[in-house]
Amino acid sequence: MTTTHAYAAQSPTTPLAPFDLTHRALRDHDLAIDVMFCGVCHSDLHMARNEWGVTQYPIVPGHEIVGRVTRVGPEVTRYKVGDLVGVGCMVDSCRTCVNCRDGLEQYCNNGFTGTYNDPDRQDGKRTTGGYSTDMVVDEAFTLRVPENLDPAGVAPLLCAGITTYSPLKEWGVKAGMKVGIVGLGGLGHMGVKLAHAMGAHVVLFTTSPSKIDDAKRLGADEVVVSKNPDEFKPHVNTFDFILNTVAAKHNLDPFMELLKRDGTMALVGLPDSPHPSPSVGNLIFKRRRLAGSLIGGIAETQEMLDFCAEHNIVSDIEMISIDQINEAYERMLKSDVKYRFVIDSKSLRK
Amino acid sequence: MTTTHAYAAQSPTTPLAPFDLTHRALRDHDLAIDVMFCGVCHSDLHMARNEWGVTQYPIVPGHEIVGRVTRVGPEVTRYKVGDLVGVGCMVDSCRTCVNCRDGLEQYCNNGFTGTYNDPDRQDGKRTTGGYSTDMVVDEAFTLRVPENLDPAGVAPLLCAGITTYSPLKEWGVKAGMKVGIVGLGGLGHMGVKLAHAMGAHVVLFTTSPSKIDDAKRLGADEVVVSKNPDEFKPHVNTFDFILNTVAAKHNLDPFMELLKRDGTMALVGLPDSPHPSPSVGNLIFKRRRLAGSLIGGIAETQEMLDFCAEHNIVSDIEMISIDQINEAYERMLKSDVKYRFVIDSKSLRK
Ligand SMILES: [Zn+2]
Ligand SMILES: [Zn+2]
Ligand SMILES: [Zn+2]
Ligand SMILES: [Zn+2]
Repeated sequence: MTTTHAYAAQSPTTPLAPFDLTHRALRDHDLAIDVMFCGVCHSDLHMARNEWGVTQYPIVPGHEIVGRVTRVGPEVTRYKVGDLVGVGCMVDSCRTCVNCRDGLEQYCNNGFTGTYNDPDRQDGKRTTGGYSTDMVVDEAFTLRVPENLDPAGVAPLLCAGITTYSPLKEWGVKAGMKVGIVGLGGLGHMGVKLAHAMGAHVVLFTTSPSKIDDAKRLGADEVVVSKNPDEFKPHVNTFDFILNTVAAKHNLDPFMELLKRDGTMALVGLPDSPHPSPSVGNLIFKRRRLAGSLIGGIAETQEMLDFCAEHNIVSDIEMISIDQINEAYERMLKSDVKYRFVIDSKSLRK
Repeated sequence: MTTTHAYAAQSPTTPLAPFDLTHRALRDHDLAIDVMFCGVCHSDLHMARNEWGVTQYPIVPGHEIVGRVTRVGPEVTRYKVGDLVGVGCMVDSCRTCVNCRDGLEQYCNNGFTGTYNDPDRQDGKRTTGGYSTDMVVDEAFTLRVPENLDPAGVAPLLCAGITTYSPLKEWGVKAGMKVGIVGLGGLGHMGVKLAHAMGAHVVLFTTSPSKIDDAKRLGADEVVVSKNPDEFKPHVNTFDFILNTVAAKHNLDPFMELLKRDGTMALVGLPDSPHPSPSVGNLIFKRRRLAGSLIGGIAETQEMLDFCAEHNIVSDIEMISIDQINEAYERMLKSDVKYRFVIDSKSLRK
């Protein structure tokens, strides 16, 4: 058993710092993975600082992981040593409930096992994430990473990519549809790329006029600066689907009004305090729907990676070394990142 | 041209009282209809008292109308003198927008013409409703009433019936599904009957323990007294669909939590003040949907009437004469009606 070098938070108020740990011995279906890159998700920050009240310290965050298989358990059938693989937000689930059987492990009725901070279903040990030199993960929760994509840019696909791909697929986005993406952060910029690749007419909503050019470069056909109510008017009753990636509390009604009859707005961000209550009239008078969506299932995550390989899509990233992680968190809080920080895991091996 | 005897409100604060009017001469596709029965809908009261701020006086309410054709315009093809017909909430729409072309005139992008208080699309005259001896209505917005049903009990189907039937159909309610109906008023009691006839396992939610027996008589398999949080627990994550008929402001979350993954709660009541903001977590963690639904299209209303004929379904009613209408409004405000007042239009002819 070798020592894993990681970065952990020891309390809500201490910065992340070096932390060594030892992974479990490989079980029958386990893979040992050398981490190459790990994306930095807002959830990592929320969890490191116990902002959701469920954190157990020390915590090693990271759930946007790309690496190579170095060892395999005796019953592993899907992967071999040297394979390029990914790990996202989940490393296990009950595998028996209706949602797991439907391939939607993220909705597991018994609760999926998060990649970090959750008790392992067999030994009860808290899981640790991708801010580390290596991982041990069941092959059933491991993805095959296409070799034609930049692996650093692939890392954020494992959370930001699937979180936006899954609702776009669930609500049938395709050519001929008009799709809104609200917010141009880590999630939103993936939403724009994916919806564009699916053939939709994509309208990006942002509060920052400075993002207009970038949004168009990423694939938006139109950009609406959402501080200007006048810019909404021509779009009323015209959208088939809106993917709202903004977690901050905001008024949903101006977006709901843009939906056609039977249109849906799906929320993927969890606000700290409730959004203003959405208008019931907006729902009733055009049979509109307000929904939520959580990451995506394992099979769908593989489908997303293959889709990205076909369309040559990765995340726009800023590479950092692990000792820049605390600074990266501060910049992330200011939305000062285009569009995802990715840790070069070599920096953990020094 | 003959005189029509009606009941109208002359101001928000005056009781409804006798009012004579003259209908337009028959247009090519018009029917003249002798009203036999007219249901009393909560909207009638809101509109008579200008509680939605759009009322033009004098107003003749009533949009749950059953009667017989007495005369037909020269181009009428669908009905003949003597036919038993119904008129619901709409008497016209633009007939050209995508929603009208889809047979969903209630979502007309140019606004449907309400059965009362709306300007006629041709002459601009305000429409008048079914609290009257007779009506003139375009055959395209007239329904065929099955002769095997009690016509007085059919009247409320034209609003309360279709308002509940349409969402039950839109969300695919059928045998094997678990369906909740929230509230046991005019709408809710139809929701219970219709969902039961569609083969669903029906759970009625009511704040009144006194309604348990009646709900079961109407077709509920189970009744949950919604003041008791403990009664909700066994139902968490088990419902395919919930039809929420309660317009009064209330907390939606306890109901949202009862939905399975991908389940929908559809609201058909418009609250005076906003419901507490629904939890985004409830939406995200099971990909649930909150929706609204408005009455139903003309073709679907005919389908509903035919469904009711097949399953021998009518509304439970209390018959009144027109001079009891003001008292009926007061009782309706106290939910003291099982489950719909219906005006016997003979009382207008005296
Ligand atoms: Zn994440
Ligand atoms: Zn499960
Ligand atoms: Zn009504
Ligand atoms: Zn129309």
